[in-house]
Amino acid sequence: MEELNQVTDKMEQNRMETNLEMLKGLSLEDYGRDFLLTWEKSDEEITATILLAEILQELHKRRQSFRVFESGLAVSIFRDKSTRTRYSFASATNALGLTVVDLDEEKSQIAHGETVRETANMISFLTEAIGIRDDMYLGVGHRYMKEISQAVDDGYREGTLAQRPGVINLQCDLDHPTQSMSDLAHLKRYFGSLENLRGKKIAMTWAYSPSYGKPLSVPQGVIGLFTRWGMDVSLAFPPGYDLVPEIVRLAEENATRSGGKFEVTHDMSSAFAEADVVYPKSWAPFRIMEQRTELLRAGDRSGLADLEKECLRMNAEHIDWECNDEKMALTKGGKALYMHCLPADISGVSCERGEVSKEVFERYRINTYHEAGHKPFVIAAMIFLSRLDDPVGKINEIVDPLLSS
Amino acid sequence: MEELNQVTDKMEQNRMETNLEMLKGLSLEDYGRDFLLTWEKSDEEITATILLAEILQELHKRRQSFRVFESGLAVSIFRDKSTRTRYSFASATNALGLTVVDLDEEKSQIAHGETVRETANMISFLTEAIGIRDDMYLGVGHRYMKEISQAVDDGYREGTLAQRPGVINLQCDLDHPTQSMSDLAHLKRYFGSLENLRGKKIAMTWAYSPSYGKPLSVPQGVIGLFTRWGMDVSLAFPPGYDLVPEIVRLAEENATRSGGKFEVTHDMSSAFAEADVVYPKSWAPFRIMEQRTELLRAGDRSGLADLEKECLRMNAEHIDWECNDEKMALTKGGKALYMHCLPADISGVSCERGEVSKEVFERYRINTYHEAGHKPFVIAAMIFLSRLDDPVGKINEIVDPLLSS
Amino acid sequence: MEELNQVTDKMEQNRMETNLEMLKGLSLEDYGRDFLLTWEKSDEEITATILLAEILQELHKRRQSFRVFESGLAVSIFRDKSTRTRYSFASATNALGLTVVDLDEEKSQIAHGETVRETANMISFLTEAIGIRDDMYLGVGHRYMKEISQAVDDGYREGTLAQRPGVINLQCDLDHPTQSMSDLAHLKRYFGSLENLRGKKIAMTWAYSPSYGKPLSVPQGVIGLFTRWGMDVSLAFPPGYDLVPEIVRLAEENATRSGGKFEVTHDMSSAFAEADVVYPKSWAPFRIMEQRTELLRAGDRSGLADLEKECLRMNAEHIDWECNDEKMALTKGGKALYMHCLPADISGVSCERGEVSKEVFERYRINTYHEAGHKPFVIAAMIFLSRLDDPVGKINEIVDPLLSS
Repeated sequence: MEELNQVTDKMEQNRMETNLEMLKGLSLEDYGRDFLLTWEKSDEEITATILLAEILQELHKRRQSFRVFESGLAVSIFRDKSTRTRYSFASATNALGLTVVDLDEEKSQIAHGETVRETANMISFLTEAIGIRDDMYLGVGHRYMKEISQAVDDGYREGTLAQRPGVINLQCDLDHPTQSMSDLAHLKRYFGSLENLRGKKIAMTWAYSPSYGKPLSVPQGVIGLFTRWGMDVSLAFPPGYDLVPEIVRLAEENATRSGGKFEVTHDMSSAFAEADVVYPKSWAPFRIMEQRTELLRAGDRSGLADLEKECLRMNAEHIDWECNDEKMALTKGGKALYMHCLPADISGVSCERGEVSKEVFERYRINTYHEAGHKPFVIAAMIFLSRLDDPVGKINEIVDPLLSS
Repeated sequence: MEELNQVTDKMEQNRMETNLEMLKGLSLEDYGRDFLLTWEKSDEEITATILLAEILQELHKRRQSFRVFESGLAVSIFRDKSTRTRYSFASATNALGLTVVDLDEEKSQIAHGETVRETANMISFLTEAIGIRDDMYLGVGHRYMKEISQAVDDGYREGTLAQRPGVINLQCDLDHPTQSMSDLAHLKRYFGSLENLRGKKIAMTWAYSPSYGKPLSVPQGVIGLFTRWGMDVSLAFPPGYDLVPEIVRLAEENATRSGGKFEVTHDMSSAFAEADVVYPKSWAPFRIMEQRTELLRAGDRSGLADLEKECLRMNAEHIDWECNDEKMALTKGGKALYMHCLPADISGVSCERGEVSKEVFERYRINTYHEAGHKPFVIAAMIFLSRLDDPVGKINEIVDPLLSS
Repeated sequence: MEELNQVTDKMEQNRMETNLEMLKGLSLEDYGRDFLLTWEKSDEEITATILLAEILQELHKRRQSFRVFESGLAVSIFRDKSTRTRYSFASATNALGLTVVDLDEEKSQIAHGETVRETANMISFLTEAIGIRDDMYLGVGHRYMKEISQAVDDGYREGTLAQRPGVINLQCDLDHPTQSMSDLAHLKRYFGSLENLRGKKIAMTWAYSPSYGKPLSVPQGVIGLFTRWGMDVSLAFPPGYDLVPEIVRLAEENATRSGGKFEVTHDMSSAFAEADVVYPKSWAPFRIMEQRTELLRAGDRSGLADLEKECLRMNAEHIDWECNDEKMALTKGGKALYMHCLPADISGVSCERGEVSKEVFERYRINTYHEAGHKPFVIAAMIFLSRLDDPVGKINEIVDPLLSS
C-alpha cells in the first residue's frame, strides 16, 4: 500500500513537472483580464488554464499554499440560485488570498437605478476579481458581463481604479466556462492528456426532466469547447429543443478546424452509439426561453405559468430520453464515461422519472464528484493567469522547491 | 494597580503553563474529526478542549495570534436564527485563519432536491470545518449532522476531497456542545479547576417564558456534560416538560460512573436548595416538540397555531417558575452562581414576566457575558484539536516563547 | 509619456513624504476609539485622517500592502440598503487584514428582544471594528451608535472584551462622516491642500428628485465639516426643506470660528453664483422625516403612502431645482466642480427629471467616481488611527522603505 502511494506520489510529481514545462512553452501575452467565453481564448490559453488548474489541485492535495495575494476582494454577483458555483468561487479566491464580498442585488442599491457602469466602478476600488452568474434571460447575461468588463476597463484608464479587476463568467446565457473547463480537466485526467481526446466520441444529449427553465449554457459550453480538440461531438435533442444558433455554428467551425466531427441528431440512441463519453442533461427549448425572457420582463405571471405548463407538457413527450442501462449498453463496450454538471435529476431518487436512472448514476456518482472537484482550481487558474504580471514565473517559484525534493 | 496587573499577568501565565503541561499528558489519538455530542468524547478529550480553549483565550488577551491556517474555508449551515453562535463560529474560524462561507439554504440549490451526500461533498473541496445549527425538529438535527459527517468521510476515502473537514455541532436536537463546553469553561474558571466541580450542586431548571418552542438542547447538553465531573445535578421542570429520555438516562449513568448525583424533580425550590450554581432556562415540552415536528413537516399552519396556544397556556400555569431573589435565597449562602446561555427572558425588561427577575439578572449580567465569551475559543479549540496533525506540538510552539519571557 | 509618469510618480512620492511629515506633527492622543461625528473630532484629528487616507491610497496604487492585522473581525450592521458604503467598509477592513461579518438583523436574534447592550458585547469578543449604517429614523441612528459605543466601553472595562472595538458611523440621522471626509479628501486633491480651501465657495443645495425619503445626513455632514476650513458655505433649499436645526447652528459657529462664511438661502441660483464647488443633492424635508419616523414606528402603512404622495407633490413644485448648464454658467468661470455622493438622479438617464442634467453629470462623471474612490481609504484611516497603539509609527514603518528608494 505504502509502495503504491509512493508510485502515485511520483506520478503526480511527474505530472506537475510536465505541466509546468508545458506551461512555460505557451503563449499567454494576450490572455487578457477576463474569462467570459472559452471561444474567445486561444487553444494555448485554454491549455494553460487546464495545466495550471491541475498543478493547483496537486498543490492543494499536498497542503501547499498557493496564496498569491496579501489582501484584496473578489466580488460575486449571483442573479440565480447556486450552491456549487458560489462555493467554488469562494474557495478559489480564498486559496489565492482574496475575500469574497457577495453583492446581493436585493440588499444593494442597484435596484435604485444605478447604471451598470457606475456600480462596476463603485465595487472595484480594491477588487481583484468579479465573478458573475447571470443565466436567466437569453440575450442578457453575456451582454451584462461585457458591460461590466468595459466599465472597469474605462475605470482603470480614467484613473478611478488602481488595478483592473478580472471578470469571470460563472454562467451566462451563452457559455458556462468554469463548468466546461472543469469537464475538460476531467476528460484530460480520464484519457491521460488533451491530445488523447482526438477521435473520442462524446454524446452531449438532452435528457428528460420534470422541471423547467434549465439554462442552455451547459450544452453550449460543452459543444463550443470540446469540438476544438478533434473530438467527435454528437449533439442530440428532441425537435424543438434547439440551442442558440450561433453556438451551434461555432461548434461546426471548431470541428472543421480541429479535424473533429460535429453532428446534430434527434435520436438519443444514435448519439450514444459507440460513444466514449455521454453527457445527458436537460435544458429548456430555445423558443421557450425566448418567450420566458419576454414574459419575465413584462412581469406576466399568468403567461409564465402557462408557459411552464406548456414546457412541462413538451418535456413529458420525451420521457424516454433517460440515460439508463439500456442506453449505456449502446456506448463503446457499454462503458462510456457518464458526465453531469450536477445536480442530476435521478429517476427514483430526486424525482419519479428523470435524466438518469438510479443504477447508472450510482455507478458514476464518484466520477461526477471528481468532475465537479476541478472547478475551484479551474477558477483559481483563470484568476491566476489573468491577474498576475508573470503567472508562469510565479507558479514556478511555488512548484520548483517541491520538485527538487 | 500596576502591581496587581503584574500579579494577574503572572497568574495567567502560570495557568497557561499549567494547562499546556496538562495537555501534554492527555490521550488525544481518538479525538476524531468531528465534535457532535459531548458524550461521544472521553473525559480526557473534553478536558483537553477546555484547557486549550483557555490557552487560546489568554493568547487573544495578549493579542498573540494563533492563526494556524494560511487559507481555507469554514462553511456554516444555519437552519435557525442565531446571533451569538453565528458570530462565535465566524470569529473562531477567523482567528485560526479560515474564512466563513454561509451556506444559506434559501440561496442555494439544496432546495432543488440535492441529496445531503452530494451537497456535503460539493461544499468541502477546500473546506476545513463545517459548522451546523439544526435544532428545529426533534430527531432531525443530529441525524443530519451524522449524514454530513458520513458523506465527507466517504468523499475523503473516495478521493473526492483532499482533506476531511471537521463537522462541528453548533446546536442540534440532542446537544449544544459549544454552549455546554463554554459553560464548563466558565465553571472551571469560577471554581478554579475541573476537579473542584466535584460535589458542587447545580440546579438545571425549567423557567417560565412567554415564548414557545425553545429547544431542549441546552438543558440536555448541561445534564449530559456536568454529570461527568462528580457534580450534584438537579434537573427540575413542571410535569410534562420532560427532556429526550435517552439523554436523561445518560445523565443518570454519568452520575453513577463519576460518583456524582443526578435527580429529577418537579419542584424548582428543592432544586435551588443549597445549590452552588443555578441555570434556570425555559424549554418546550418534549411532547409538544414532537407534535410540532410533525405539524411542521405536514405544513399544517392552523395546527401549529393551535399547538402554540396550547403550549403558551401550559407555560402560563407555571409563571411562578421564575428565578428571583426569593428563589436565590434558597441557594448556598444565597449566593449561587446564576448561569444562562442568553438571551434571557427578563421580567420587566424583555417581557412582563419571564425566566429571571430584573434584579437577579442585573447582578449576574457581566457573569453571563463572560460565560458567553468562552464560546469562540471553545469552537477554535475543537477545530484545532480535530484538524491539526499534532495540535499539542503546535500550541506548544506558539505558547513556549511567551513562557520563557 | 514615460517621462510624464516619472514626474507623476515623483509628485506622489513627495505628497506621501509631506503627508507623513505633517502627520508626525499632529496631536492624536485623544483620537478615541470611534468615529461617529466629524464635529467630535479636532481639526488636527480630521487632518490626520485625510493625510493618512491619502497615504493609504497611494500605497494601494503601488500595490504595497498596509495590512496591519493578522486576523480579526469587522462587524457591519446595515439598517438600510447600500452598495458603495457596504463595499467600502468591506474593502477598507480587508486591506487592514480584517474580515467582515455582516450582522443581518433579520437572520439574527436582535429581533428576539435582545438588548442593544447585550448584542454589542456578544458580537465583539474578537472584533476590531463595528461599522453601522442607521439613517432611517430621525433621532435614532446616532443614539443607537452611542449605545453600542457605551456598551463596548463597559464590556472592555468589565473584562468581557479583551479589546475595545472601534465604532464607525457609516451614515446616521445626523452625519455621514465617511462621505463628507471622502468629499474633503477630494477637495484637498482638487485644490492642492486643505489650506487652499480657505475662501472657496461651496454651494450645498437641495435638488429635485422624483423619489422620496432621502436622508439629511449628506448635506448635514457637508455643512458641518466644510465650514471648519474657512470656506464660504452656501446652503440652499426650498422653504420647508430645513435640516436638523442643531447642525445648522453648528455650521454657523464653525464658520465664525474658522473665519469662513455660512449662509442659508432659498434661491439655488444665488448659491451657485460664483461658486467654486457645487453639491446639488435631494433630501426629504425635516418635517416629513419626523412624520415618517412616527408613522414607521406606528406601522401606519396608509399614513406612509399619504405622506409619500404629499412629499412627492411638494418636490414637484421645485422641479426647476436642477443642476444644468444654465445653473453651472452662474458659477466661477462657469467651471465650478460638481460633486455628488452617488447615485445621482440624472435627468433623462435614471429618471425623466432629476437632480442634474445629463450633460453636466457626464462632464463630471469621472470626477464623481474619484470622489467616491476615497471612501475605502478614509474608512481604513479611521480604523487605523483609532485602533493602533502607535499609528504614526506604524505607517512610518510601512512608508519609509518606499521613500528612500
